Amino acid sequence: MKISHIEHLGIAVNSIEEALPYYENVLGLKCYNIEVVEDQKVKTAFLKVGDVKIELLEPTSPESTIAKFIENKGVGVHHLAFAVEDGVANALAEMEGNGIRLIDKAPRKGAEGLQIAFLHPKSTLGVLTELCEQ
Amino acid sequence: MKISHIEHLGIAVNSIEEALPYYENVLGLKCYNIEVVEDQKVKTAFLKVGDVKIELLEPTSPESTIAKFIENKGVGVHHLAFAVEDGVANALAEMEGNGIRLIDKAPRKGAEGLQIAFLHPKSTLGVLTELCEQ
Repeated sequence: MKISHIEHLGIAVNSIEEALPYYENVLGLKCYNIEVVEDQKVKTAFLKVGDVKIELLEPTSPESTIAKFIENKGVGVHHLAFAVEDGVANALAEMEGNGIRLIDKAPRKGAEGLQIAFLHPKSTLGVLTELCEQ
Repeated sequence: MKISHIEHLGIAVNSIEEALPYYENVLGLKCYNIEVVEDQKVKTAFLKVGDVKIELLEPTSPESTIAKFIENKGVGVHHLAFAVEDGVANALAEMEGNGIRLIDKAPRKGAEGLQIAFLHPKSTLGVLTELCEQ
């Protein structure tokens, strides 16, 4: 598996509408896309900083994993996503071979049309980790 | 204030020695520097992924803020550091003018000789945020 770069950093917020003034007016970043991922019950907003995206994640239902995350840990950094070069399926196989616990056994479609899969934070030193590929 | 990129992502770990096999052997990143920051009571290890650094933070004393963070929240992402272009002091003045609560009122020297300052997560939507400049 080859990681090329950090694709994005996922940040849990209560409300994208309330969070954007901080990211846009205070930090000076630009939101270029807002998208609802129905099956994940989240609304996402993307901003670019250098080559890395910041993905704000707002729960659209109390059953959303993001709602549960906020309930347990509060708002803040939710996950770290690495871009991999040789396919997410290959990366998952390699991860599993290394004893890493997978949340997604196979790649699935995420926001922005990426192929994605999550690794379990119990196996990744507490960092919920996503692998993704364009 | 102009943010050019994410300078690094700080990740709290119990032990750098125990964390490096995951980052190096499983993720395939390379540690290029290990440094102790005495006044912060942390040992830091730096790895590069694309243009962004990952800074692993190990407490060297139970009084370290990293030890307290781990006690409260567990290991995982600790802070997000943005590189600013027009000086950290200017950025802090602008942040304060925007009502952002500062942890450091003035820039101080961090790991790798950077000028750094932290913003309070209560003002930054739960993300402990560092501003830094080479």
